[in-house]
Amino acid sequence: MIESYLKQVGSCVEAWWQRYLAVDSASPQSPLYESMLYSLNAGGKRLRPALLIMAYNIFDNRPIDIAHPAIPYAAAVEMIHTYSLIHDDLPGMDNDDLRRGKPTNHKVYGEATAILAGDALLTNAFEIFFDPSIGVALPYERRAHAGFFLSKAVGPSGMVGGQFADMVAQGSSSDSKTLLKYIHDNKTAAFISASLACGAILAGGTADDVNRIAKFGMDSGLAFQIVDDILDVTSTAEELGKPAGSDELLDKLTYPKLYGIENARLEADKLINSAIESLEIYGERAIILREIAKFIGLRSR
Amino acid sequence: MIESYLKQVGSCVEAWWQRYLAVDSASPQSPLYESMLYSLNAGGKRLRPALLIMAYNIFDNRPIDIAHPAIPYAAAVEMIHTYSLIHDDLPGMDNDDLRRGKPTNHKVYGEATAILAGDALLTNAFEIFFDPSIGVALPYERRAHAGFFLSKAVGPSGMVGGQFADMVAQGSSSDSKTLLKYIHDNKTAAFISASLACGAILAGGTADDVNRIAKFGMDSGLAFQIVDDILDVTSTAEELGKPAGSDELLDKLTYPKLYGIENARLEADKLINSAIESLEIYGERAIILREIAKFIGLRSR
Repeated sequence: MIESYLKQVGSCVEAWWQRYLAVDSASPQSPLYESMLYSLNAGGKRLRPALLIMAYNIFDNRPIDIAHPAIPYAAAVEMIHTYSLIHDDLPGMDNDDLRRGKPTNHKVYGEATAILAGDALLTNAFEIFFDPSIGVALPYERRAHAGFFLSKAVGPSGMVGGQFADMVAQGSSSDSKTLLKYIHDNKTAAFISASLACGAILAGGTADDVNRIAKFGMDSGLAFQIVDDILDVTSTAEELGKPAGSDELLDKLTYPKLYGIENARLEADKLINSAIESLEIYGERAIILREIAKFIGLRSR
Repeated sequence: MIESYLKQVGSCVEAWWQRYLAVDSASPQSPLYESMLYSLNAGGKRLRPALLIMAYNIFDNRPIDIAHPAIPYAAAVEMIHTYSLIHDDLPGMDNDDLRRGKPTNHKVYGEATAILAGDALLTNAFEIFFDPSIGVALPYERRAHAGFFLSKAVGPSGMVGGQFADMVAQGSSSDSKTLLKYIHDNKTAAFISASLACGAILAGGTADDVNRIAKFGMDSGLAFQIVDDILDVTSTAEELGKPAGSDELLDKLTYPKLYGIENARLEADKLINSAIESLEIYGERAIILREIAKFIGLRSR
């Protein structure tokens, strides 16, 4: 059920950005668009777009096809996710050669193009929130509110701040559990939570609705990152699509490092349960979101 | 008159972002904000913010102080300009050590922080267009329209596309005049034009007004870049605040290279005159914009 949902949303957002980012192949910037689409189409679970659509559909249940009014915004969050991965992989950052089993953007197109491709995807993602031709279906207030929530979550007071703190913590002797939670909350959970909140906001959810959905996102997002930390220790490179054990190699602050693998699993389970509880009030309408939270928890087993 | 106008707008935007980007100095992301503010406060003419305010004031003449309703957006365009400079200077791009006579962001804070500081400034700039607490003075429609114009102008179909084409053209045997105009139009003029258009849109200008102001921006923006090319050939490092002759060193496509210095000057003059004509209709109200266009032209002498 979840796998097919992710695939369905995935094919919608892929079709959507294929059209949105179409450009005359003879134009000077055409290879830049090619590099953007290379990373966008290099796979990935499409988790954030799916979460946005799932949250939207709690309040305004629509068929999942390319005409769904929130598909452009679902594409936008994946564009932001992809920009963050391209920049994260750069030689000046984590210097990764592989991502999802494929050469990273800078390995294929060179460092300068990778920097610009990331910048371009980030800019285009916000453009979608402003674009009058896209937004006709949804009021300006909702789009601005969603854009505000999202930009907060992925800027220096959110994801970029988390990446920065993560980098600074690498190799330091710091073993602060508070710092680790700060990093994971900001680097991962804030963006997952904002993707969900965007869905609720765009569908016209109340402030209470948005808070509940955002809380679900912070809990399950933190669980997601803890599970990622665990998988980096317990999986093979083939399973991960990138070298395993890279966190340890980089001396990163992680849950398994500070708490041990079994305690990290217990913490993830606790967060998943708390996340699921937040959505009980929506009954059947939120069943898929509760399922996906369970799915995140099971990945660590 | 122009110098004092630039200074006045400059001190308003500086005061504004000093408050907007204030963060607890004990927080993990505090050094990231410090690096953002380092580049924001490293000088610069504050040309784009001033142009935005000048265009705004044609349609809604307000005193230039921190309470001016367009100051946050003027700050936003300078944040975007600063992000583009930080990324442009990176080792993976132009690899510049000096900018405005000071060490570049990555020389002071390291490459990874410089990448993130650029990402953060770009994200924060768009956040300003969404922020409900900032926008109370201006309707959502205007802010979204301005944000759309701006994001188009600085993304892959604008500034970032121009930077990409500029980079690809370096060292190539290409001497296409069409390509050179594409690069300058997109790398420089589109953003200058959008800064002006944002001002007109935010102040409630009509579609005709916005077109006129944007045309003024494209003409004077291209002239500005041609003059920059000329100055790179004719100035000393001290005058420029960065090494002179770097365009030639990088084998960049420039107007002096393709047309010769004197013809480049004539082309700039022609564009300046065309720009000035576009604004005749506003009479006294646009006097400062016509002055600034003349000022751009005179820089090349």
